[in-house]
Amino acid sequence: MINYDQFLSRSAEQMRGSAIRKMGTVLAQSHEIISFAPGYPSPETFAWHEFADITRELLSGADGNVLQYGPTRGYKPLLESIAAIMEQRGARTSVDQLLITTGSQQGLDLVARVLLDPGDVVLVELPTYTGAITAFRNVQAAMVGVPQEEDGIDLAALDATYARVTAEGRRVRLLYVVPNFQNPTGLLIGLDKRKRLLEWADRRNILIVEDDPYRELYFDSVSEAEVRPIRADDEHGRVIYLSSFSKTLAPGYRVAWIDGPAPLVGKFEIAKQAEDLCTGGLDQRVVYEAIRRGVLARQIPKLRRYYQEKRDVMVDALTQAFGSSVTWPTPRGGFFLWATLPSVVNSDAMITRAVENGVIYVAGEAFFVNGEGRNLIRLAFSSASKDQIREGVARLSKTVREEIAAIEAPASRG
Amino acid sequence: MINYDQFLSRSAEQMRGSAIRKMGTVLAQSHEIISFAPGYPSPETFAWHEFADITRELLSGADGNVLQYGPTRGYKPLLESIAAIMEQRGARTSVDQLLITTGSQQGLDLVARVLLDPGDVVLVELPTYTGAITAFRNVQAAMVGVPQEEDGIDLAALDATYARVTAEGRRVRLLYVVPNFQNPTGLLIGLDKRKRLLEWADRRNILIVEDDPYRELYFDSVSEAEVRPIRADDEHGRVIYLSSFSKTLAPGYRVAWIDGPAPLVGKFEIAKQAEDLCTGGLDQRVVYEAIRRGVLARQIPKLRRYYQEKRDVMVDALTQAFGSSVTWPTPRGGFFLWATLPSVVNSDAMITRAVENGVIYVAGEAFFVNGEGRNLIRLAFSSASKDQIREGVARLSKTVREEIAAIEAPASRG
Repeated sequence: MINYDQFLSRSAEQMRGSAIRKMGTVLAQSHEIISFAPGYPSPETFAWHEFADITRELLSGADGNVLQYGPTRGYKPLLESIAAIMEQRGARTSVDQLLITTGSQQGLDLVARVLLDPGDVVLVELPTYTGAITAFRNVQAAMVGVPQEEDGIDLAALDATYARVTAEGRRVRLLYVVPNFQNPTGLLIGLDKRKRLLEWADRRNILIVEDDPYRELYFDSVSEAEVRPIRADDEHGRVIYLSSFSKTLAPGYRVAWIDGPAPLVGKFEIAKQAEDLCTGGLDQRVVYEAIRRGVLARQIPKLRRYYQEKRDVMVDALTQAFGSSVTWPTPRGGFFLWATLPSVVNSDAMITRAVENGVIYVAGEAFFVNGEGRNLIRLAFSSASKDQIREGVARLSKTVREEIAAIEAPASRG
Repeated sequence: MINYDQFLSRSAEQMRGSAIRKMGTVLAQSHEIISFAPGYPSPETFAWHEFADITRELLSGADGNVLQYGPTRGYKPLLESIAAIMEQRGARTSVDQLLITTGSQQGLDLVARVLLDPGDVVLVELPTYTGAITAFRNVQAAMVGVPQEEDGIDLAALDATYARVTAEGRRVRLLYVVPNFQNPTGLLIGLDKRKRLLEWADRRNILIVEDDPYRELYFDSVSEAEVRPIRADDEHGRVIYLSSFSKTLAPGYRVAWIDGPAPLVGKFEIAKQAEDLCTGGLDQRVVYEAIRRGVLARQIPKLRRYYQEKRDVMVDALTQAFGSSVTWPTPRGGFFLWATLPSVVNSDAMITRAVENGVIYVAGEAFFVNGEGRNLIRLAFSSASKDQIREGVARLSKTVREEIAAIEAPASRG
């Protein structure tokens, strides 16, 4: 039997499976489990009927290119539609600054490969999105965390971290942020802070990777001005902006985009050639038609109401079940609620008990690059039904009670 | 203006755009040009009607998972269907040895990332597939070429190359081969040689990457026994096998697979998590249904006849146009004819003239890792119509005549 470890690259030796993907697998194995784990949009919101109509027309055979290989950069009409979307979001762009990616995860991966050498430092929020951690780790970059305040990343801590890392002789290349309804905390970066981040990036000669999958999903208390991309005020070409149709149309179409400085986007395109040649041609055309026919525009207000209602149900259920023993910042948009459990609880160790009780979440540690997050959990309210949310929170409450009792039991016996 | 070069990784500094993809872009810009460049399957062969039926059913909304995120490993029923396909090809496998990839290009990229460190050596055929060159180069691996004989890679040269490279203190990790209707030469590796390659890999402790997208597309003179995968006789787990539905169903569905030793496939899966989370769920289900309903099985014999006829038209046209001044090994399957032009011609330099004359091809140098291939060209006979093939060869003949005249003109003036 061959020992395959001898064949692994240094990068592969360090690769770790995603905690979120692992929970997705647990979920797929049982229909009894209520999932607050992966950030899945709810399929009942998808525009099935419109997708079916669009696809039937596309598959008539009249245009052979629909199922052919396509340009790596993307389907031109879709690129133009995305330029218009960026304009709506306040950011001027053009097709030479855009690249279609196979989901935003590919965007993160391309950014990592094109901009990071082994040992380079990426500054990230504490906590941050696991998919970004994975992409950066796979090119052997180092991540250093910066704490967040109520209005997002702490600017003083950011600059102090930059100074400390640089003084250690390490090279800081990127700042990675999720400014709108951050994954996992649900926080927004304040508008003033967004501008100051740009000034900081200019001063320190850093590029900002702005990952923005949730911005359309803001709830009643949020005005559109509050979700203005950092990219919109980026006069000097500091920002690489990523967004996606996975949360607004459907993730099964693997269609997302990067918007950034043209010379970098050209490099991302070349890197993408080697990764998958092109994003699926049918998928891109379905998304394009969904934009052109107004499906996307009709979806968004519905999705806002739909996910806000689920947020409300989860917040109510948690308040009833836990009182003040569990706390969270109220999510004002997006898919996630970030809960702090009683400090004795180790949320990762508790997963076994949670699965036994028929509920899953993602343990907080997965989102921290510094080992914190022990008693934190990310709860997605996006895909479970309202009844499931209520039942799942009850199961979670039972799990936490049992876990605390089990932790305290040996001590009380002693 | 920011100089973005300062931000590029060492890998990005070395990235080069694909010559084939570039020709695809030239092609997209003009409908007048006859393309022998990218290896596109012909859309007129696609099972449009069946795809439309299958997709309509899948998009009914009855199964929300169709457009949801899915497991990174792939859609389970499709994985099981692929295991059965592998069995038909003579190779025992199981779902834990399989991974769905977003096209075979992603398979190559995952192999590169998981198995190669900067400076590691990959042995490749001279010439070899450009997509593999790109994937290996993007992890800063070095490629060393091994000449081919009529029945594929030269085993004596292979071992001598291995010995030389190893003596230089460099580490050889992989051998990359395309055994069936090789891209670009169209050659087959002989059956006996396939077994000896396995013995060689065992002796030298090397892994073989077997890239097999064209195996189903064999023509009349080839028996199924001749396209038996190396993987089928791989008793010790030396072979990582890649294949795809892009050439048999359609490339617009980005669905391909890796079959290899379970420990490595587990690593490829983790690497894929960071690249794109999962391959499109709808795409995978369409391919699965096309297999289950017999669409694929009905397509393959049609495709063999279809591409053989195109091969015949191209061979006849070339023979008429060039006589003995241009030579090629007759392709016995696949998409490509590999032509040697008169030695004075620089096929890369000639592209401008070819585009002016309304025909494109891929210049040979793109397929060589050692700078050879100056007067060689790869001609795809797959996507042009028969009339276009005849007209395109006439344009190519005109182009070569003009090019030779232009080369010789200054000399005759002197």
